[in-house]
Amino acid sequence: MKSLVLTIDGMSCNHCLNAVNKALDSLPGLTVRAVHMGRAEVDLADDGPDSDAVVAAIDEAGYNVSHVEVAA
Amino acid sequence: MKSLVLTIDGMSCNHCLNAVNKALDSLPGLTVRAVHMGRAEVDLADDGPDSDAVVAAIDEAGYNVSHVEVAA
Repeated sequence: MKSLVLTIDGMSCNHCLNAVNKALDSLPGLTVRAVHMGRAEVDLADDGPDSDAVVAAIDEAGYNVSHVEVAA
Repeated sequence: MKSLVLTIDGMSCNHCLNAVNKALDSLPGLTVRAVHMGRAEVDLADDGPDSDAVVAAIDEAGYNVSHVEVAA
């Protein structure tokens, strides 16, 4: 048996911000207005993704959307 | 166009700890001794993964290993 001690970069809240931002940014027709800890604000073009697709993209990145507020 | 405000759970350093822990735990023959922010300590069985496989698993989880220290 052997043991390893691994030094790992990028384990920080910035990782989460980047991961969510990247997931949102991958959706055509979506413009990211802001990503904060625990909250994201996006604009959706008329031919862009629906809110379910946005929630799914965030879920796939490993985070859970607990609430979606729609503003016309 | 419409706008969404999304409330997102799990955007925290715990997310990183969980993600790295889960990536390591998926490797047969590896025992996780500790995962801290920026650092993980693991034991590898003689027929377990080599350090390259451990680094690859962490990389796949979205983190970068900058240094590996091997203890016999």
